[in-house]
Amino acid sequence: MNGLIEHTLRGSWTPSGASAAPLSPHALRWLRQRTGLAETATPAVPVSLLEVAESDLPEAARAELAALIGEQQVLTDPAERLGRAGGMSYTDLMRRRGGSRLAVPDAVLLPTDPDLVQGVLKICVRHDIAVVPFGGGTSVVGGVDALRGGKTAVVALDLARLDRLVSLDPGSRIAVVQAGMRAAEAESLLAAHGFTLGHFPQSYERATIGGFAATRSAGQASAGYGRFEDMVEGVRLATPVGEWRLGVSPASAAGPDLRQLAVGSEGALGVITEVALRVRPAPARSRYEAFVVDGWQSGVDAVRALAQGRALADVTRLSDVDEADVQLELSGALKARSLKTYLRGRGIRQPCLLVLGWDAASHGELKQRRAATLRALRGIRTVRLGRPVGEAWRSHRFSGPRQRDALLDRGVCVETLETATHWTDLSELRSAVRTALVRNLQVNGKSPIVMCHISHAYETGASLYFTVLAARDADDPLGQWQRAKMAASDAIAGRGTITHHHAVGADHLPWLEAEIGDVGGAVLAAVKKAVDPTGILNPGKLIRPAR
Amino acid sequence: MNGLIEHTLRGSWTPSGASAAPLSPHALRWLRQRTGLAETATPAVPVSLLEVAESDLPEAARAELAALIGEQQVLTDPAERLGRAGGMSYTDLMRRRGGSRLAVPDAVLLPTDPDLVQGVLKICVRHDIAVVPFGGGTSVVGGVDALRGGKTAVVALDLARLDRLVSLDPGSRIAVVQAGMRAAEAESLLAAHGFTLGHFPQSYERATIGGFAATRSAGQASAGYGRFEDMVEGVRLATPVGEWRLGVSPASAAGPDLRQLAVGSEGALGVITEVALRVRPAPARSRYEAFVVDGWQSGVDAVRALAQGRALADVTRLSDVDEADVQLELSGALKARSLKTYLRGRGIRQPCLLVLGWDAASHGELKQRRAATLRALRGIRTVRLGRPVGEAWRSHRFSGPRQRDALLDRGVCVETLETATHWTDLSELRSAVRTALVRNLQVNGKSPIVMCHISHAYETGASLYFTVLAARDADDPLGQWQRAKMAASDAIAGRGTITHHHAVGADHLPWLEAEIGDVGGAVLAAVKKAVDPTGILNPGKLIRPAR
Repeated sequence: MNGLIEHTLRGSWTPSGASAAPLSPHALRWLRQRTGLAETATPAVPVSLLEVAESDLPEAARAELAALIGEQQVLTDPAERLGRAGGMSYTDLMRRRGGSRLAVPDAVLLPTDPDLVQGVLKICVRHDIAVVPFGGGTSVVGGVDALRGGKTAVVALDLARLDRLVSLDPGSRIAVVQAGMRAAEAESLLAAHGFTLGHFPQSYERATIGGFAATRSAGQASAGYGRFEDMVEGVRLATPVGEWRLGVSPASAAGPDLRQLAVGSEGALGVITEVALRVRPAPARSRYEAFVVDGWQSGVDAVRALAQGRALADVTRLSDVDEADVQLELSGALKARSLKTYLRGRGIRQPCLLVLGWDAASHGELKQRRAATLRALRGIRTVRLGRPVGEAWRSHRFSGPRQRDALLDRGVCVETLETATHWTDLSELRSAVRTALVRNLQVNGKSPIVMCHISHAYETGASLYFTVLAARDADDPLGQWQRAKMAASDAIAGRGTITHHHAVGADHLPWLEAEIGDVGGAVLAAVKKAVDPTGILNPGKLIRPAR
Repeated sequence: MNGLIEHTLRGSWTPSGASAAPLSPHALRWLRQRTGLAETATPAVPVSLLEVAESDLPEAARAELAALIGEQQVLTDPAERLGRAGGMSYTDLMRRRGGSRLAVPDAVLLPTDPDLVQGVLKICVRHDIAVVPFGGGTSVVGGVDALRGGKTAVVALDLARLDRLVSLDPGSRIAVVQAGMRAAEAESLLAAHGFTLGHFPQSYERATIGGFAATRSAGQASAGYGRFEDMVEGVRLATPVGEWRLGVSPASAAGPDLRQLAVGSEGALGVITEVALRVRPAPARSRYEAFVVDGWQSGVDAVRALAQGRALADVTRLSDVDEADVQLELSGALKARSLKTYLRGRGIRQPCLLVLGWDAASHGELKQRRAATLRALRGIRTVRLGRPVGEAWRSHRFSGPRQRDALLDRGVCVETLETATHWTDLSELRSAVRTALVRNLQVNGKSPIVMCHISHAYETGASLYFTVLAARDADDPLGQWQRAKMAASDAIAGRGTITHHHAVGADHLPWLEAEIGDVGGAVLAAVKKAVDPTGILNPGKLIRPAR
């Protein structure tokens, strides 16, 4: 059993042995005072304490699968199955920590070739077995829950061994990568050829290329490199009705862009086995820098000016007052109080943090791009904090999940959710979601901390990413968050998208038709029926079961 | 009857009374010598000579439609019906000129409101009447042919009276426009508010916003403003199963991007009634300039360097030797011979024309962007022709269809087709298509002129746009082109997309599944069945009839 599986079991992100970003005494004091936190230790749980149901995989099916992909690639022991029981949402982690009975797949399949995936689906159709495609297991929306959907059994189809760089065409700047390759591994293989994908979501350390495609991921540098769907030049899927390959040209008018059906298909319309990716030359230079603006609206104006002036830095990230505050208080790196005094002296009452990061081929290009960004900001009052703060953000860019582990250990309810809408509606949406979260996360009269940032900006609008820190309701920790999430989702419906980059999974499904209409829901169901007539693929995610 | 309908009837693009860009004696001599053209006059045909079948629209249906949308909005007289009988392909125009019996709709409907479109579809479902959505009528792929598809009658649903600017949100830079608005009208309305859409395909003078969306159009400035699908923020469709609205945010991870199913749906999956468009500030400055590079490959290298260096001019257009030659010979503006001599003196043996055009908010920005483009071209030998040639291209950018009229009048077989592929495969694809066209368009041992240009470039590849000029085969003019088109399409299949911006229509349908797979074909058929269960919408286009 590898390290990944072991620590997943424990209900935390942090690999065993690694530091879970422990909280400083100052940070803890501050959290207690702000949220009414009564530290209740809820450490991750050892494997042996988690209950696992017997595997229901019929022996005939097991034997056929083993004959096709190899005995070693069909795993039924509890530890392996537990390792693919759900993703990384607060609810997932708390369930594991609570030792409650988890929905665990009946087997883990590890095919080593795309053609074998096609064969696996055939066998699973014949034996009426649900198939949950599994990549990095980082879903925070119930996207990899081992739901059976009325089938006789459910298997996790782990793509970890589809991890090859199939081809690289430097002239066309296209890399074909198998779906199970981890993002970090892809970056390192591409770097050897002088290229980068430029996709850096917070799940970067674990997530896979196939997972990015299946969930329409967006990385922290989306302003410069685009969303993941912008990088997908082509895609190869295994489906119960046969293999599906798409993408013979950069763009086309040959009817609807079916690649955009495959991207975001969440394992419910096929198993993505290969992705042809647009790559870029690895930057020779980069620079990260932080600024402070006074108040949220001023920050929004700044980001909008950059997006509409097409002068966005590759990373463009605005944190609201609460997020900036928490970042200062929780990090030992900066003296929160003296910084605030300094900013007040500069007339900044409501410090919001703007992190900008540029990648470039040369020092000259970097200088030019930075100048263009700063030019577009001329109308907005900013105070420059400089490179150390920017670089500090950069070096901690993937540490959020580890920091969450430390907070979970101490009894904090910590979770995120996100949306996006048009500029004109952005502040109203932010207020509505904040209100819903604050109301529903109060414990003993103490309000939670609700932080918000913009990390993805477009000419017509932007994303909003919320992080909450609340004292955990000891009696009903899961209900506490679920009520808040439901209220926030209701606030989003009709005002913005139910998810900007986390996908639908099981958790957002009740709100999907408010966004795509009942016609949209019927269309997805029809596509599902066409490619997966018996409904074995990832049941209960993305597509509402036929009524 | 308005002017549009009258000249459409005549089998030409040029409005009656306007000049059809007559050919100079020099141009004619040159064409005769190059193509073996034996001038056979085939002028456009007066309405009275075209046969029109009686309308098969059942009286009960007519009465219901008239009760819903008004008597004046249900037209059955032959001239109106003829005006919506097909598009603007060579085949369409030749059929009209030949006076052969055309597939003519049984009625023309002109609803004045999106809600009425929804009602029209209900009535047509009840009476089993096929509906062909009709915008500018500029399809060159049989996209608006009045095919009945086994129904009792077929109506053209002309969206001309859905021509309102519904709303404009300057802060989010989104304009909601009704589908029947002409591109030129949209630009002029937007200009009044300081905005532009920036979508300028050759069909600009006639085409509609809804048509652009339905066909995944790409304009001449796609390098700067994006393809039409990049401009579609949201869309509203009428379908037989109810209204469908999409697009609540700039980007989303709420499953597949269904907007990309609506865009390119070609009237077969719904009638687009409104489009929410991303708009940009109208440029204060622009500059068009021409350069010459030596040989096709050198030109490809130049365009690729610009695309991959993200330094494309807003208009970036490379013409091969043949196209550059024809442009010189057919235009009176330039002295072809002296220019060639000058270029030979500069070491250019195979002059290919590179037209670059920049839009900008200010002189400074223009200067900067132009400098970035020229910097990215440093590795390529170019000879600057200057602004007059660039501006000449610009001022004639929409004149192609009128020039075609003059050629048609003189007996030339003139038509275009297009594709796109990755950079690495581009030159092989160009050769394969050229060979197919040359072989199949020969007349009396004389080869046609086959020209090619790149007008849309991406980081991973580019489009190829072919124009042919051949002596018309007097005995079988339609067969001559159809054989060539078939051979070219066969050459494209597997190497590139069957269409980069002309859409599928009826003409490309036989090659669609080579591109999207039989799974893709099944998916489109399933979506069709979900939104249009009885198959009334634009039968015979985009989606193969159920087998």
